[in-house]
Amino acid sequence: MNSDYVRIVEVGPRDGLQNEPGFLDSSIKLELIHRLAQCGFLSVEATSFVSPKWVPQLADAAEVFSAIVKNPKVSYPVLVPNLQGYERAIAAGAREVAVFTAASEAFSLKNTNASVGENLERFVPIFERASEDGVKVRGYVSCVLGCPFQGKVAVQDVALVARLLYTSGCYEVSLGDTIGVGTPTKTRALMQAIASEIPTSAIAGHFHDTYGQAIANIFASLEVGVRVFDSSVAGLGGCPYAKGATGNVASENVIYLLQELGFATGVDIEKLVDVGAWISAALNRRYESGVGRALLAKRGA
Amino acid sequence: MNSDYVRIVEVGPRDGLQNEPGFLDSSIKLELIHRLAQCGFLSVEATSFVSPKWVPQLADAAEVFSAIVKNPKVSYPVLVPNLQGYERAIAAGAREVAVFTAASEAFSLKNTNASVGENLERFVPIFERASEDGVKVRGYVSCVLGCPFQGKVAVQDVALVARLLYTSGCYEVSLGDTIGVGTPTKTRALMQAIASEIPTSAIAGHFHDTYGQAIANIFASLEVGVRVFDSSVAGLGGCPYAKGATGNVASENVIYLLQELGFATGVDIEKLVDVGAWISAALNRRYESGVGRALLAKRGA
Repeated sequence: MNSDYVRIVEVGPRDGLQNEPGFLDSSIKLELIHRLAQCGFLSVEATSFVSPKWVPQLADAAEVFSAIVKNPKVSYPVLVPNLQGYERAIAAGAREVAVFTAASEAFSLKNTNASVGENLERFVPIFERASEDGVKVRGYVSCVLGCPFQGKVAVQDVALVARLLYTSGCYEVSLGDTIGVGTPTKTRALMQAIASEIPTSAIAGHFHDTYGQAIANIFASLEVGVRVFDSSVAGLGGCPYAKGATGNVASENVIYLLQELGFATGVDIEKLVDVGAWISAALNRRYESGVGRALLAKRGA
Repeated sequence: MNSDYVRIVEVGPRDGLQNEPGFLDSSIKLELIHRLAQCGFLSVEATSFVSPKWVPQLADAAEVFSAIVKNPKVSYPVLVPNLQGYERAIAAGAREVAVFTAASEAFSLKNTNASVGENLERFVPIFERASEDGVKVRGYVSCVLGCPFQGKVAVQDVALVARLLYTSGCYEVSLGDTIGVGTPTKTRALMQAIASEIPTSAIAGHFHDTYGQAIANIFASLEVGVRVFDSSVAGLGGCPYAKGATGNVASENVIYLLQELGFATGVDIEKLVDVGAWISAALNRRYESGVGRALLAKRGA
């Protein structure tokens, strides 16, 4: 593998916090976003403009987003479910948005109340407006290695959705193992299949660590040439489909892997551990990163 | 990779419990050993005949070992530091012992109060007696991917110790990433180097999950052809070199990986989760296996 740059999309403030119980004060969300940008992440997913009815944790999306002191080098994507959400996001100052659908029909129907095809249609006006507005669009595909409702998901289903998102206007398609069931051989096969549909540089891997396989899956993806990964500081978020289970892979663990493999990430891991320890305390939860706990213990020794 | 058998050496009752705070009742240790054998493990490391001065948690080694209702298909290795320990182990009925040294001189001196060479000399009478007694000897090499005292450890140092242990009479050499700092590329290079010194079938991988890399390292080892791994139910043990940090990789996570990759392990993962949840409760600690927590949550759902 080459010693080159890997971009980490830090999703803690959005994908993490939207799954944490209780409402976090807007000022803490803002501090989290600011501190993550200071760690060196070039993408910090800031919040979600999905209706507060569905995501009450991020009901302050507009207020938080407009208050961010933006670093011009950093992108702050926000999740948008439809044109209305897009408009709210743009009004708050967003310059990058993310749309989301699933590779699994069963999941799409349960999670978005629409089929995969209906979701893709719903995105058409977003792509049109984003193109006019010069706004970047990122695409999320969930359940790429398994679905909590239908079980197996065919690689060709993922490939179709990834290709449609890419050709419709997504500059990057993030492939999500939403329930963390993937293993490195399946991940490798999936990434190889998708890399034959869209440029490898347009693929991001989004792994959950529910079954402890995320780092192995990221390694397998790196070997295929994938160079963008989503992760969440302190593993914020948990797994909405299994109470008490682990969700998003911790950014600290991913940065450790990449550093040790010789990749550049631009992220200061010690600063990141400070942020991880701080936000875990703010949420009154254990610091859910092995790397974080190990580096803290090392400092104490 | 072939769909074949991978042997897991379940080290929870020894490597796990010796690092847990407090003394666990002998009856609970016995129940743990019995239940692990019932899960399908063919190797359950039962206890340690290191002096109780050093390992007070396992001061009841002889009592526990002689009370095990042995399954004739299962091997119950025990740790022995020297000939005296060997004799105590054999008197208690042991038919397999394990000796241990390090690939790092600094670690060896701190941990065993002897150089690597002195350790290997100390083992000579054990190998002689074991050969006469028809007792199998397993060898542990610690710090194969890094040392808490000297930092880097050269691959040729690991290779030398592994070769000496193997040629002296160890049927299997377990290579331990004692502080969990390894990554898959380093692990792959190490395993390839050792496989050129001793038969691949005589290599075991012993990974700690301190930095969340253990599953990725096991995957890398599998790709080199290694088919034996040590792990600990519920990740028992923690890391003695970093308070609060993770130690032994959880057996549940390893079995999940292997199953999903199509390897046979003979281990019933649902039974194993029952054991993991039970021993975690008995030790009043959180259940430190992502797979364990996810499968329990699934049952509850």
